[in-house]
Amino acid sequence: MVDRAANAAVSTRQVIRFREGIARIEDHLVVEEPMEIRLQGRPLAVIMRTPGDDADLVLGFAITEGIVSAPDRIARVAEWGDGRWELELAEGVDIDPSQFERNFYATSSCGVCGKASIDALRVTGSAPPPGPVVGADVIASLPGRLLGEQLAFQSTGGIHAAAAFEPDGRMVAVREDVGRHNAVDKVVGHLSRNRWPIRGLGLMVSGRVSFEIIQKAAVAGLSLVCGVSAASSLAVELAEEFGMTVIGFVRDGGFTLYTGGERVQGLPAVTGG
Amino acid sequence: MVDRAANAAVSTRQVIRFREGIARIEDHLVVEEPMEIRLQGRPLAVIMRTPGDDADLVLGFAITEGIVSAPDRIARVAEWGDGRWELELAEGVDIDPSQFERNFYATSSCGVCGKASIDALRVTGSAPPPGPVVGADVIASLPGRLLGEQLAFQSTGGIHAAAAFEPDGRMVAVREDVGRHNAVDKVVGHLSRNRWPIRGLGLMVSGRVSFEIIQKAAVAGLSLVCGVSAASSLAVELAEEFGMTVIGFVRDGGFTLYTGGERVQGLPAVTGG
Repeated sequence: MVDRAANAAVSTRQVIRFREGIARIEDHLVVEEPMEIRLQGRPLAVIMRTPGDDADLVLGFAITEGIVSAPDRIARVAEWGDGRWELELAEGVDIDPSQFERNFYATSSCGVCGKASIDALRVTGSAPPPGPVVGADVIASLPGRLLGEQLAFQSTGGIHAAAAFEPDGRMVAVREDVGRHNAVDKVVGHLSRNRWPIRGLGLMVSGRVSFEIIQKAAVAGLSLVCGVSAASSLAVELAEEFGMTVIGFVRDGGFTLYTGGERVQGLPAVTGG
Repeated sequence: MVDRAANAAVSTRQVIRFREGIARIEDHLVVEEPMEIRLQGRPLAVIMRTPGDDADLVLGFAITEGIVSAPDRIARVAEWGDGRWELELAEGVDIDPSQFERNFYATSSCGVCGKASIDALRVTGSAPPPGPVVGADVIASLPGRLLGEQLAFQSTGGIHAAAAFEPDGRMVAVREDVGRHNAVDKVVGHLSRNRWPIRGLGLMVSGRVSFEIIQKAAVAGLSLVCGVSAASSLAVELAEEFGMTVIGFVRDGGFTLYTGGERVQGLPAVTGG
């Protein structure tokens, strides 16, 4: 297993910058490389990701996409080649990899494949954990807290971040990736090794809140999801179905609450309508 | 075939907005729904997309992902159910759908499946078209031109846009989608019906320039790609290999030129280094 340095996420390159004059400078680019995940020797997935926290990415992916139902069903993840990872199941866990075979463009965001994990939630009827309850002032403070932790973003300006946070706003895990979903999977993978099941934490993402982000959060037990940008219609509908909280446009000291206001504290009385 | 109204891209919803006081307002959300594409009766792809220009999305997807090598190999695309589309090949065109079968997470951005189209470019050795050559002032003007055309963004703030533009900056086709790649495919699909092969146009995207955006642009013959955000390392490497131009951070009157400066006109002499 290779532990990549954090700076493997960034490469440098000579570029020409045109902005009030022109200059040849050394710029920092976010690194994007393919990762292959195999299950019992069979190719399961190939995803483009930013190197770093690769083992956590594999763990988180396996959990949020419903490949396994809990971290203890995984014996270990092992790198067996550059960017090639094997997901090894715990003894006695038997999964038929062919159940995950679909045609090649059916991604996890399709509402068909990711459907496996969503259907499982529906079948078990397990409501998402009720917490956390977070103050409106804490929510408004999240972008600043996130940006303070985003190392690669500061140098490249081109990377997504996801963070799990405590009700008081403290960041428990912050991860960056060129792929929005990968950043979430890296956070979930990290938490799966340290505090599982995940309870009482919120999820903050640097971009928009899509259907797939909600899907992954629901499976992981992160019932409050905040994003710097907008939420999509399907994301809000899914969150509503599962009793989750969705908050978008968290920026400039404000935010938009789409659903699940019972997890937000300290809002003044609502006017207008 | 159903022609959806442009406003199918936007839905409305009661939300609570907290920003210097609190108000219950009606907000606009970008719509995100699954689309299934079938080829000769077999499922080929399921993608999450914003409804609108669906037929163009199917056409563009088929072209930029290397399913077909040119629009004339497609007889027609037909909707046979809600969000279910069939790609019908022209007479005499024989494609084995099983060649596109992969495991379900291998998306087009994996460098493995999209590889088919990239490999084809490499094999034919076809250099991308030399044009367009665009003035630095025109490039700097692109974000304003794009924003002026982005109807759904203005109401939802949560949608990506892609545009093909003439060397003088005029926008030929502007399309929006919750998915970055879908917006590009919608533009390419539109152009495939109107001006094929695509020559002498640039591509502008509202977000970052990823590997997959370059891959799609290369296949479509769009050899100059501009983005409002950063370019990834792999995107720049692929563009360099194919002799394309990549420009990022097009905003606030400036931009960063990563590679392919021969297509940019009117840059003052470079200083620094």
